[in-house]
Amino acid sequence: MKALLVIMDGLGDRTDKTPLNVANTPCLDSFAKKGMTGLMYPIGIGFIPGSDTAHLAILGYDPFVYYKGRGAFEALGAGFELKDGDVAFRVNMSTVDDNWNVLDRRAGRNDFGMKELFAAIDNMEIDGVNIRVTHTVEHRGAALFSGANLSVKVSNTDPHRENAKVEHAGALDKSGEHIAKVLNEFTRRAYDILKNHPANKERAAKGIKVANIPLLRGPGECFRPEPFEKKFGVKAVCVAGGALYKGVARYLSFYTPDIEGATGTKNTNLVAKKNAVLKYMNDYDFVFAHLKGTDSCGHDGDFEGKKAFIERADKEFFDGLLDKFDVVVVTGDHSTPCVAKRHSMDPVPLLFYARDIRPDETTRLCEAQAYKGGLGRILGKDLVPIIMDYINKSNMFGE
Amino acid sequence: MKALLVIMDGLGDRTDKTPLNVANTPCLDSFAKKGMTGLMYPIGIGFIPGSDTAHLAILGYDPFVYYKGRGAFEALGAGFELKDGDVAFRVNMSTVDDNWNVLDRRAGRNDFGMKELFAAIDNMEIDGVNIRVTHTVEHRGAALFSGANLSVKVSNTDPHRENAKVEHAGALDKSGEHIAKVLNEFTRRAYDILKNHPANKERAAKGIKVANIPLLRGPGECFRPEPFEKKFGVKAVCVAGGALYKGVARYLSFYTPDIEGATGTKNTNLVAKKNAVLKYMNDYDFVFAHLKGTDSCGHDGDFEGKKAFIERADKEFFDGLLDKFDVVVVTGDHSTPCVAKRHSMDPVPLLFYARDIRPDETTRLCEAQAYKGGLGRILGKDLVPIIMDYINKSNMFGE
Repeated sequence: MKALLVIMDGLGDRTDKTPLNVANTPCLDSFAKKGMTGLMYPIGIGFIPGSDTAHLAILGYDPFVYYKGRGAFEALGAGFELKDGDVAFRVNMSTVDDNWNVLDRRAGRNDFGMKELFAAIDNMEIDGVNIRVTHTVEHRGAALFSGANLSVKVSNTDPHRENAKVEHAGALDKSGEHIAKVLNEFTRRAYDILKNHPANKERAAKGIKVANIPLLRGPGECFRPEPFEKKFGVKAVCVAGGALYKGVARYLSFYTPDIEGATGTKNTNLVAKKNAVLKYMNDYDFVFAHLKGTDSCGHDGDFEGKKAFIERADKEFFDGLLDKFDVVVVTGDHSTPCVAKRHSMDPVPLLFYARDIRPDETTRLCEAQAYKGGLGRILGKDLVPIIMDYINKSNMFGE
Repeated sequence: MKALLVIMDGLGDRTDKTPLNVANTPCLDSFAKKGMTGLMYPIGIGFIPGSDTAHLAILGYDPFVYYKGRGAFEALGAGFELKDGDVAFRVNMSTVDDNWNVLDRRAGRNDFGMKELFAAIDNMEIDGVNIRVTHTVEHRGAALFSGANLSVKVSNTDPHRENAKVEHAGALDKSGEHIAKVLNEFTRRAYDILKNHPANKERAAKGIKVANIPLLRGPGECFRPEPFEKKFGVKAVCVAGGALYKGVARYLSFYTPDIEGATGTKNTNLVAKKNAVLKYMNDYDFVFAHLKGTDSCGHDGDFEGKKAFIERADKEFFDGLLDKFDVVVVTGDHSTPCVAKRHSMDPVPLLFYARDIRPDETTRLCEAQAYKGGLGRILGKDLVPIIMDYINKSNMFGE
């Protein structure tokens, strides 16, 4: 039996006129009528979920146990192999003046020459620690520190605002002393290499802000949880464009193929993603598909864009796909209300369909109905165990 | 004040046409109209409850704290007295060849001479451990190991399939070494006694498979939780036919009389059970009654049988009984959907009536309404504390 879990990022919204309330979604409606709806608190009541913690929870891993900082997911999503004890960071390539005042944390958000600049500071060895860095998108990348005596108890070098000095990394407790020292030395050496790098000379010549320092934040401890396949007994695949979502899935040992046309933006090729799901469902029992567009529009306060993305997904992604699965779940990882332009604690509407399900009286996946749905209110970490029972992969507690 | 808790085993079901949705139940309907309904997760959302863990929870004992393996309940149900530190097992009397290949794990499911065969291997002393065994039904029984240095960290001797050798019991950690040795010696001695036992000669002469070895499984640690009467301050009685349910109740120190005509099957004498409840309610404040038929039908996929049992219970058991109590709860220990033929994680409909209760708009005990009921969704372990308040037996937390 086959299960499909679709996360429309930031799907939930606020007010009586939410994108889901007013969107034209005939395919989702037909499954809502046959199945049941409800509300999901990805982390817990009153928590504003991060994308990383929410995805961990919704994939069946209690984030209070398994979340070790965002860096690990970024590094995995960027393609690094992690070993227990490694520490990963998110990296912004930034623009500083000679006194290390930050002029632009995002170096003009311009990726010209960025791959070479990251490569120039890759693979340093400092005090027994190997440091790998790699570029991902725009000005962003990931860093991985490998060696003995590392710890996440270290403060960022990123001041998180412009016109402030680059922060000196400090130990947050005794365990962080070594990595703080290494991180400060890495930052110094990187600056020396980057300031005169040919790619920066080219950027300057073109009028693009130079990218002369890597700012590190979000230290994440690397440790590998029990693989999803082992924990739940099913083969699992992730169909996503965004690095973070693939990173979380890779952390849980999902197969995470690159999907051509899947960009992790609202312009992603939804037909290509649908075809990828149809292809991989042959070999995998559990397909996790991620659509990012709803969240991007929510952050931009773009109500019409969010509604339009939902309608396009209904036509180009859901139609002709949902009826191929025994179990279908469509929900969000959190709410990103257009009126708030950020993640919020509002629970997310959820559609659950399985052939023998107890139907309820709700007829659409939307905020106006979900609070009355037959699934009631569940936590993110409850979702996968419910799915597993419907595909006969759950175990009894007791006899 | 008097409370009645009726567990209809495996009551919940799936699809829009469940036995409860379509059954004709005028008595239950009248109490649903006056009271409220809701859904109960016996263990937790997404958990498939076993009968043992579910009953513990629903009787007010957190199964994550109090569940120590099935063996203890079986041994109690079979009439043994347990002491802290004892280890109990479930026993199948089985048929093996000379090389201890298992030919039939259930010895033809024939109980001819079975009482004598169990008696023949009862009361052995091995390395300071006393071993009691007793017959229950068919080929089944219970074993109780008493002595020092025992542990449940021991593997089964039951291979759980035919055409496989009897398993050598092994220690799962250091604490299990002594009991593993004793269990293997017990099995060897039992075989020597049983292979030439007159009852087996008679079985062979009649063409019945011999019962020449006891296979032990499900080791359960014996420890006695705080008695129900002490924990909740009420005198409690269990009216049930099945050994397991009486065993759980005995574990919690309920009074567990034998009820004539109560068979633990769908053909049980429901009028006799009703009369037993009416009799014992004079001396006990809290009556736990268990009806098994719904579960048996669910396991058999027998929709009509499950519906008919519910209708018979309404007429022969509930009618003329429910109005005698101040508090009435009718629910299941889990769902056993006819379409699944096994326990499932689906929450169970629950009817709660008390004279001064806040009524809701639901009018029947059934899946189609319970998700909208006034009780909402509760966990199994929440139920008894709610009942206790309605009979003025609960204590304030704080002042």
